[in-house]
Amino acid sequence: MDEIRVIEVKRSVFESNDREADRLRAELRQRGTFLLNLMSSPGSGKTTTLERTIEALSDELRIAVMEADIDSDVDTRRVLAKGVRAIQLHTGGMCHLDAGMTRQGIDELGTDDTDLAFLENVGNLVCPAEFDTGASANAMILSVPEGDDKPLKYPLMFQVCDVVLVNKMDVAPYFDFNLDRLRANVARRNERARVIPISAKTGEGMDDWYEWLREQVRAWQA
Amino acid sequence: MDEIRVIEVKRSVFESNDREADRLRAELRQRGTFLLNLMSSPGSGKTTTLERTIEALSDELRIAVMEADIDSDVDTRRVLAKGVRAIQLHTGGMCHLDAGMTRQGIDELGTDDTDLAFLENVGNLVCPAEFDTGASANAMILSVPEGDDKPLKYPLMFQVCDVVLVNKMDVAPYFDFNLDRLRANVARRNERARVIPISAKTGEGMDDWYEWLREQVRAWQA
Repeated sequence: MDEIRVIEVKRSVFESNDREADRLRAELRQRGTFLLNLMSSPGSGKTTTLERTIEALSDELRIAVMEADIDSDVDTRRVLAKGVRAIQLHTGGMCHLDAGMTRQGIDELGTDDTDLAFLENVGNLVCPAEFDTGASANAMILSVPEGDDKPLKYPLMFQVCDVVLVNKMDVAPYFDFNLDRLRANVARRNERARVIPISAKTGEGMDDWYEWLREQVRAWQA
Repeated sequence: MDEIRVIEVKRSVFESNDREADRLRAELRQRGTFLLNLMSSPGSGKTTTLERTIEALSDELRIAVMEADIDSDVDTRRVLAKGVRAIQLHTGGMCHLDAGMTRQGIDELGTDDTDLAFLENVGNLVCPAEFDTGASANAMILSVPEGDDKPLKYPLMFQVCDVVLVNKMDVAPYFDFNLDRLRANVARRNERARVIPISAKTGEGMDDWYEWLREQVRAWQA
């Protein structure tokens, strides 16, 4: 297995995170790299979803991954095993990524020949939503066991997301989880957010997710 | 139903959060109030666990609850319905509670005639672990669907906790979750942490949790 590249990312010194985010986004568009900021609670299935996505799309899209993790390289090893470029961002205990930290990652990762880059953010429904990373779009994964009331309790996360993946649909029968109620709760926060029920484990719904990604990359590179 | 009391808690102005936390803890000991800081990811079952605990112990212990939530009063309503004193702490989007915020809550809640007070912290495995709230002890709930690798990824949370409740054991057969592996991962971070597997839904293991709470209150008031 490749040696894992670990980047110690520092809190941004930029006066305005939003301005730095816009600048990074413009550069990524020029290079034709669609960067997806992937957020969720701990344990919702971000890495498993990424693994499946890489398997499904790496023949047609050039993919790279940045893993932000607090103190382990478990996730980066799993992604590297899928044969794509991946680096790990050490946040030094920080609970989120900002645009400056994302840029440090992008510079180290390199985006030549990259159509689709994933930023796996810190597992946290609060802080990551407060900082524009400069990504082309925001995605979140909500897993069925977390409950359908989460848009009521973590409103900002749902407001900033372009797509909400509802993962672990295969265990829905064992939980008091109602997909229609979840859709209504998401819509209260964000009418434009696309909701896609999936199971990264069984593959259910994953084709809809892949199609959403293909459309985004196509539009970004047009 | 009672009107819900909502407190807007502000970030602490105290120079040293640790000093303020120690002061609050000493006062709580003098008053004989054991305050438990309850932390977890979103959707791990904090409120359901509290509901069951209140039902089981409110005949023998005088219980009160502070609910920190970002933008809904769902949890406070559920706890009030169990007939105990409860207030809601609005954190204004903050991702954690510090000792100053906890004191504002305690002052408003009042601790006369309170043996056991719960502070339901913001659902987040990162930031709440970084701030001593002044509580008598720290507890966290890890739910089975989140995975047994969480102590590797959120080390500080497991380091600061006196007890780890492993909730949703009833759905363990549907997940790749190994309790022995979890125990080993917790022990790597914190050898003293007590691990108690429970299901707040079916009641499994809850007696061990109640006994742990009784012992803590007894020792605190001795």
